[in-house]
Amino acid sequence: MTAIRVGLIGAGWMGRAHAAAFENAVRIFGPDPARLEIAAVADVSEAAARDFADRFGVSRHTTDWRSLVSDPAIDVIDITTPNDVHPEIALAAIAAGKHVYCEKPMANTAAEARAMNEAAKAAGVTTLVGFNYLCSPIQAYARQLVESGALGDIFHFRGTFDNDYMVERDFPFTWRTDARAAGRAGALGDMASHVLSLAHYLVGEVIEVSGARQILHQRRNDAAGRERLVENDDLAHFICRFSNGASGYLEASRIGTGRKLYLSYEIQGTDGALIFDQERMNELLFYRRTDDRAERGYKRVLVAPEHPDYRAFFGLQGNPLGYNDLKIIEARRLIEAVALGKHWVADFDFGYRVDRVVEAALVSADEQRWVKVEEIA
Amino acid sequence: MTAIRVGLIGAGWMGRAHAAAFENAVRIFGPDPARLEIAAVADVSEAAARDFADRFGVSRHTTDWRSLVSDPAIDVIDITTPNDVHPEIALAAIAAGKHVYCEKPMANTAAEARAMNEAAKAAGVTTLVGFNYLCSPIQAYARQLVESGALGDIFHFRGTFDNDYMVERDFPFTWRTDARAAGRAGALGDMASHVLSLAHYLVGEVIEVSGARQILHQRRNDAAGRERLVENDDLAHFICRFSNGASGYLEASRIGTGRKLYLSYEIQGTDGALIFDQERMNELLFYRRTDDRAERGYKRVLVAPEHPDYRAFFGLQGNPLGYNDLKIIEARRLIEAVALGKHWVADFDFGYRVDRVVEAALVSADEQRWVKVEEIA
Amino acid sequence: MTAIRVGLIGAGWMGRAHAAAFENAVRIFGPDPARLEIAAVADVSEAAARDFADRFGVSRHTTDWRSLVSDPAIDVIDITTPNDVHPEIALAAIAAGKHVYCEKPMANTAAEARAMNEAAKAAGVTTLVGFNYLCSPIQAYARQLVESGALGDIFHFRGTFDNDYMVERDFPFTWRTDARAAGRAGALGDMASHVLSLAHYLVGEVIEVSGARQILHQRRNDAAGRERLVENDDLAHFICRFSNGASGYLEASRIGTGRKLYLSYEIQGTDGALIFDQERMNELLFYRRTDDRAERGYKRVLVAPEHPDYRAFFGLQGNPLGYNDLKIIEARRLIEAVALGKHWVADFDFGYRVDRVVEAALVSADEQRWVKVEEIA
Amino acid sequence: MTAIRVGLIGAGWMGRAHAAAFENAVRIFGPDPARLEIAAVADVSEAAARDFADRFGVSRHTTDWRSLVSDPAIDVIDITTPNDVHPEIALAAIAAGKHVYCEKPMANTAAEARAMNEAAKAAGVTTLVGFNYLCSPIQAYARQLVESGALGDIFHFRGTFDNDYMVERDFPFTWRTDARAAGRAGALGDMASHVLSLAHYLVGEVIEVSGARQILHQRRNDAAGRERLVENDDLAHFICRFSNGASGYLEASRIGTGRKLYLSYEIQGTDGALIFDQERMNELLFYRRTDDRAERGYKRVLVAPEHPDYRAFFGLQGNPLGYNDLKIIEARRLIEAVALGKHWVADFDFGYRVDRVVEAALVSADEQRWVKVEEIA
Repeated sequence: MTAIRVGLIGAGWMGRAHAAAFENAVRIFGPDPARLEIAAVADVSEAAARDFADRFGVSRHTTDWRSLVSDPAIDVIDITTPNDVHPEIALAAIAAGKHVYCEKPMANTAAEARAMNEAAKAAGVTTLVGFNYLCSPIQAYARQLVESGALGDIFHFRGTFDNDYMVERDFPFTWRTDARAAGRAGALGDMASHVLSLAHYLVGEVIEVSGARQILHQRRNDAAGRERLVENDDLAHFICRFSNGASGYLEASRIGTGRKLYLSYEIQGTDGALIFDQERMNELLFYRRTDDRAERGYKRVLVAPEHPDYRAFFGLQGNPLGYNDLKIIEARRLIEAVALGKHWVADFDFGYRVDRVVEAALVSADEQRWVKVEEIA
Repeated sequence: MTAIRVGLIGAGWMGRAHAAAFENAVRIFGPDPARLEIAAVADVSEAAARDFADRFGVSRHTTDWRSLVSDPAIDVIDITTPNDVHPEIALAAIAAGKHVYCEKPMANTAAEARAMNEAAKAAGVTTLVGFNYLCSPIQAYARQLVESGALGDIFHFRGTFDNDYMVERDFPFTWRTDARAAGRAGALGDMASHVLSLAHYLVGEVIEVSGARQILHQRRNDAAGRERLVENDDLAHFICRFSNGASGYLEASRIGTGRKLYLSYEIQGTDGALIFDQERMNELLFYRRTDDRAERGYKRVLVAPEHPDYRAFFGLQGNPLGYNDLKIIEARRLIEAVALGKHWVADFDFGYRVDRVVEAALVSADEQRWVKVEEIA
Repeated sequence: MTAIRVGLIGAGWMGRAHAAAFENAVRIFGPDPARLEIAAVADVSEAAARDFADRFGVSRHTTDWRSLVSDPAIDVIDITTPNDVHPEIALAAIAAGKHVYCEKPMANTAAEARAMNEAAKAAGVTTLVGFNYLCSPIQAYARQLVESGALGDIFHFRGTFDNDYMVERDFPFTWRTDARAAGRAGALGDMASHVLSLAHYLVGEVIEVSGARQILHQRRNDAAGRERLVENDDLAHFICRFSNGASGYLEASRIGTGRKLYLSYEIQGTDGALIFDQERMNELLFYRRTDDRAERGYKRVLVAPEHPDYRAFFGLQGNPLGYNDLKIIEARRLIEAVALGKHWVADFDFGYRVDRVVEAALVSADEQRWVKVEEIA
Repeated sequence: MTAIRVGLIGAGWMGRAHAAAFENAVRIFGPDPARLEIAAVADVSEAAARDFADRFGVSRHTTDWRSLVSDPAIDVIDITTPNDVHPEIALAAIAAGKHVYCEKPMANTAAEARAMNEAAKAAGVTTLVGFNYLCSPIQAYARQLVESGALGDIFHFRGTFDNDYMVERDFPFTWRTDARAAGRAGALGDMASHVLSLAHYLVGEVIEVSGARQILHQRRNDAAGRERLVENDDLAHFICRFSNGASGYLEASRIGTGRKLYLSYEIQGTDGALIFDQERMNELLFYRRTDDRAERGYKRVLVAPEHPDYRAFFGLQGNPLGYNDLKIIEARRLIEAVALGKHWVADFDFGYRVDRVVEAALVSADEQRWVKVEEIA
């Protein structure tokens, strides 16, 4: 069993989720062709780094992330820090010839994402962005259906990502509502990127958008009790066109009253259609227009051993996977990419293209006009 | 356009529902081969009979139902009275050579139902029992699926009819809780008969049962405020065997907390399965075991023009039919049976066989043992 | 019992639906304060008019609609003709002092709808537009919830009307795809108007839109087998703002693969939310943000006697109403409006405001820009 | 951090699932009060034991399970072997003073389960049976609702456990269809025990049953291609009475066409009701009869931080847990029981009571009569 040595930067909740996924990946998928081993962990907080090292049996911890980037014994830099420092770390890692696994969004601006992507391409390193929802067996199956032609020509897409934790008036001002840390795109940057990743994965690229943004509660108190102005959108939505001519609608909202993890889509094609909702992540609704007329209807397909990756977990159809299982599959994608050169769709190029649409939507909303994605750097 | 002349006995809510259905049947299905015309109406209440006659433009009303039975100008006697007088009226009508349309249950005892059935057979008159739920296009489609072999061999059935209006502690004692009027079988007689009608229509005959009954609130106040002992079951259920060897479970409950019109079934066969719920009466869930493994799942089929009778209402799939539309289709069945001799499944023989299972369940519950339906008269 | 005498113009499917609803309205709601009586029927086809008269027992039929308008014995002109002749008939009827019941959309252009509305206001006649989906008890209940403040401040709306009969490549060119008869707005005019009627009824007026339109199959053969260019949209959608500041998205599609009668909405407010789908027209999903945290979730409320109009049909919660029942309730609204002066929300002013948004969406799509509804005549 | 030293017997799929859960329990719940450490693993197959030891970093492996039982360094014996050897191992472990964690069912006969239970009680050791479905936060919440009185008096229960892998004609004869290995109760022993565990957890004890069993395909080929007679039931079901007077229906089927993990229940009480389905394991449907009449309906509650154990996984409502997460929570229950003496409901006494009802159902089906559970040893 070969070990891929990871330098993990950011010892918070997401960093721990990565570490647990690394361990579970070998339990679920077996030891071949390699396992992920955290060689060192870095965090701005020494205590956090130390605690992480203790908990996961990591032999080395530091507050200096650069020491990981420059460590020749490290193969992959894994970035789970706040968004605003993604670019600096990634660029340094790429410059040092490391493969990079970066949480989404890659950056708070498309220009930064483009720079990261171009640097990675030039350096020839492997990259992977943490669009974990793409890693679901049910999405892999959806893509198989699309590629098989079961939907015919896709001409329409609707997608949402609604949750409602910030509809509460007294939810505090945090880094998420602070443009410096989270970017000018709020729900748009954080959540629409997930919907876009599904749209790009299943339909194709968005090339033009007309959107709007909304802040429900203009003021929130921060942890210290000071009233602060919310600096980015609670809800963003846009209509769009895809490169294949399909029309689309996308929405992201952290104030989506009643919705909890409503990462949903509906894809309509000339021969079939799909409906999905992450709250019921183990189900895909599938409609075949080509069925006998008396028998047409949406079929609820539960995740099954015939769908990619599921059999590693369970031998019988319908055993529910959970959120954490998606990160395990993502770790598997990283192993395959680094050890076998097997490309996973969600690389920096993919991430950059998502970020570019996010920014096009931002400009469209601010300037109240249709924006072509190619206008964006 | 030929008129079938009906003598309607019982001018209450159900009588009015029949009359409205007679009128609408010609609107929906057209005038051929005949229309139903109420020639006379009878009710124990002169006022009710008169009001009914006024409302529906019926030229003759009476408190003497026998005068309808003896009227040579009347073709069909329609019985919508309380259950306990069904047999007397039906037997008189049959003796007079009338066709008989009788609300369910035919009678409060299987012996009476048998007598009605035998008399009708001997007289060669047409009979129809008001199992309106069988008249739904979606049930006709379900039966087509069964008959086509799409389910393979059916080996298991589960069915319920739950509503919850009597779970309320203060719901009054009425004729329904009075054994003299409603029979000793409460929910069992009133509601299980509907489930049984679906089971017999789609699976086959129940031949053996082991059941139990329950009264939730032993005492209720009648309209006059007197406390009365509830005389029949609030909930009845039984496991059973069908003539084809299938196993089954049936339940009826007027205390089914949370359920409103939960007339439901699940039918499992070697090649497919069906799920239905009357609260969503325009949907049939259909599973094909023979689908490609990756694609197996329950399909939600909305009622469609390809299903029997629906096209008379609507040209596009998915326009909801309502409860009253089922009575319209039932009226159509009556017209076809009387004018064309086209047999409808829910005749007196069918009704008797249902009542016999109800009584077998009653005996089984009372004697706490398996009862063969053939034990019942 | 007073009769309101109706002159019905257009003896097709919708005309018959009105006539049946008139008859059933008195069965369901009783004879007070009045019943609707069709005094005469007109159709361009003499045969159609005669057949209609025979079927519904109407004493007079004609091919000259003007003779109905000028008939002093007629109270209400009921217009169920193709859309393009609505304005001429309605204006003539109003000029003659008749009340007008007109199918939706009122007209193919907002300018015509405005003229109709202004004429009706000036004449002081009662008007009603056939937005039948508004007549559902479940929508009346939804509106009660909104008005009670149960949703708090509404800040977001999503609505669709998808069906899929025209996704079929070989569905023919008909009057619906012909701009002269159906207008330049295809699905937009025919179907978005229904979504807009719900949006205006439950949320408020749309004041600004940015939209797009799509034709899936550019060419279809007409009944004569000639290839024709489809002249209006198969799918239209737009983002919008409401007068109260809420954001919205609306879509209409006759190519909505897999959807049959997906007239749906989701309404999000600061304290609650609603979800509805006409395929399950007897259910409203209702979320209260103010519930105990452990217990928050969407509740499925079945139509009930406590909701407006339902008790006239049924005494127990959950008995399904069907599509035709909505027309019966609409007839009841007409009776109340004419006989009692009880205003129903869907009058010509309401219809005009809907048509204006439709036209704003049309302009927005054609000119690829945000359009304020007040720009439209 | 204290380690609880486990001797794991049975290195198959379930053994690995336990080992992974032990590791993840500390990741999710933290290191206090103890972690589970596998001190040694035993399997009849030396290769399986060695492979397991390699994979999980276990320092010692053996084919002699007795050496684990006699090892003074081991605190807990974890039994994941085939059912038929559970009793021998468990009794030896108890005799050696070990705590015992045993997969369900405890034994193939109630008499063996009773012996195990009595021995454990006498020895004062901690026991836990692997009814993992009980460990779901949504079940803990269901129990809170029951205990809070939100359902009033529970009077009816329906439960099923259907999957359909053996409806396939060519599914092979395995140890599961072999009475010596799996017992005379097939689906009844393997699957009904899960439904019973939920029924006992949420409603109370079953005291009387009337049941039936069914074998769909009498003959199946074993792996060697020899035709074998199937020796236990594919489907079993029974009506029953609970100690509190409630009525019930339970079913277990490995031929439940269309169902995949349909471990479901409906619980009806005088003031509320619950519906659950393991295919949607993160949802509980909850009905309050005491809601305002206009607003009564089933509410879909997604798993939330306010429900027990969930917050250790996620901070926001609605993030799906998966099947494997339940085993992690079960491991946590074991830690709490051994390290803190905090009793978990699913101990040997609980398991024995479940097994006794299973055997009562077996006798009832074989003898075709009602059987009191107290008749069973």
